[in-house]
Amino acid sequence: MKERATAYFGELQTRICSALEVYEGKYGPRFREDRWEGGVTRVLDDAPVFEKAGVSLADVVGRLSPRIAERMGVEPQEFLATGISLVLHPRSPMVPTVHMNLRFISLTGDDVPKDRPRAWFGGGVDLTPYYLFEDDARHFHGKLRAVCRRHDPEFYSRFKKWCDEYFRIPHRNEARGIGGIFFDYLAADDAAFSFVRDVGNVFLDAYEPIVDRRKDAPWYDRERDWQLVRRGRYTEFNLVYDRGTLFGLETGGRTESILMSLPPMARWRYDHRPRPQSREAELLEVLREPREWLRESPAVEAS
Amino acid sequence: MKERATAYFGELQTRICSALEVYEGKYGPRFREDRWEGGVTRVLDDAPVFEKAGVSLADVVGRLSPRIAERMGVEPQEFLATGISLVLHPRSPMVPTVHMNLRFISLTGDDVPKDRPRAWFGGGVDLTPYYLFEDDARHFHGKLRAVCRRHDPEFYSRFKKWCDEYFRIPHRNEARGIGGIFFDYLAADDAAFSFVRDVGNVFLDAYEPIVDRRKDAPWYDRERDWQLVRRGRYTEFNLVYDRGTLFGLETGGRTESILMSLPPMARWRYDHRPRPQSREAELLEVLREPREWLRESPAVEAS
Repeated sequence: MKERATAYFGELQTRICSALEVYEGKYGPRFREDRWEGGVTRVLDDAPVFEKAGVSLADVVGRLSPRIAERMGVEPQEFLATGISLVLHPRSPMVPTVHMNLRFISLTGDDVPKDRPRAWFGGGVDLTPYYLFEDDARHFHGKLRAVCRRHDPEFYSRFKKWCDEYFRIPHRNEARGIGGIFFDYLAADDAAFSFVRDVGNVFLDAYEPIVDRRKDAPWYDRERDWQLVRRGRYTEFNLVYDRGTLFGLETGGRTESILMSLPPMARWRYDHRPRPQSREAELLEVLREPREWLRESPAVEAS
Repeated sequence: MKERATAYFGELQTRICSALEVYEGKYGPRFREDRWEGGVTRVLDDAPVFEKAGVSLADVVGRLSPRIAERMGVEPQEFLATGISLVLHPRSPMVPTVHMNLRFISLTGDDVPKDRPRAWFGGGVDLTPYYLFEDDARHFHGKLRAVCRRHDPEFYSRFKKWCDEYFRIPHRNEARGIGGIFFDYLAADDAAFSFVRDVGNVFLDAYEPIVDRRKDAPWYDRERDWQLVRRGRYTEFNLVYDRGTLFGLETGGRTESILMSLPPMARWRYDHRPRPQSREAELLEVLREPREWLRESPAVEAS
């Protein structure tokens, strides 16, 4: 299973990077490739459409530290992990930041885990807009729900909720973005692998139409400023709470590939508050109180 | 002791803010005051000399969480804390960022701490330059050593080392800056209070001459860019490792006052490396291998 997962993640990386390069134009910048022991990180830096984009492949072996093993409810032991991570930070504040991670993890020690599989899939896809466009949110969630429904009628509602809970910034009482799906510990069988592939394959369908719709919208200093403030919150989440980031830094992972997720530029202003009734305040309201984006009827998925 | 400490910290806050306002010119911006339950935060935002400056006074009561109590080696119990915190982020990359914290903490529960005083002083002052000027480093450390020596011949070397160890970013294998002093658990007697006041009183002497020397030096995009990259590292330290920040966020402290320390603007670029032999590389070398800035002879302190 591990070899099949690695092969798929590698193919997906190539496909996504090629699709994104199209946005940068025929003569625009291309992803730079950085091969390192255990992975391949591909990065766009300061490109016209994507101010910073990282799509990273990792295929590593390591040992769970006692603290991390305890949190996972297993004995400290060797593991292998393979996965794809991407974070796209568009330049325009009208285009949302997006994040996806898909991973396969296998414990290879002698100790049998207590109440989880020895090998499992995990991952998720989530969207972080700077301005709220409800049709974007519905489109994104609609695509993810359609994929979930093909596999299990419960997946979307469970994984959407999990995502809202996971990407929460408690000290701000805000979500990082408008969510998506997040899942973990899917026992590594063919059904789970098929679900993970479907999630990977829907990524471009879920994100590209939003880029297409928003990338040419005008924006000015005010919108840029708000984007930089929100990117500060993104940084706070990733550095203070994100388990993947802290796990990576703590187990001596490759710093540059782990912190690839941080925004190209961010701002912190003391006690910044958007004006009441503004579009900035509208976004904050949604971040404080996660919303259901889809009606029960599946009709919206056709959108 | 608590009342005396609070009174001193309040007086110091006023003195420092007044001195810093002079840099912004006769008609320049003034510190904005934000009074909140348990403290007074004073902030300069987007001023000509200080892009962001925060000088915060806190006087709070709370309860140690089990996790924090354990780390301190005491039983969970009520505490009171009073202190001053400041972080100054100058606009010019030629002027270093500076940080100071002075605090008095008293445990007020019935449980007697195992091997530490029931009430103690802690704190420190440290410098984070973007370009290395050795005379600035010697001046800053010289002033701190002179204060330390008036109280204990061991203080400077102990507290300088403690500072180098504390402000380390393990995942970067770098120090946050070129250090200063850091101390904790000084049993709260008159001698310790006198030391803490001397540290507070020397702050302007240690920092102002550096601002005076560097603030009119020219700088261009390259220097600004490097400053933004280094401020990213500052953010990484504060959000991933700083005990004060994590303690504050975890015990439900006032987020805005805790994160006042974050830079006004920061940048992350994938795998950024300064050119060999450049002034940027020169700084990195010093951050990787903390240096002794002062000769044994005290003559340099007269500088």
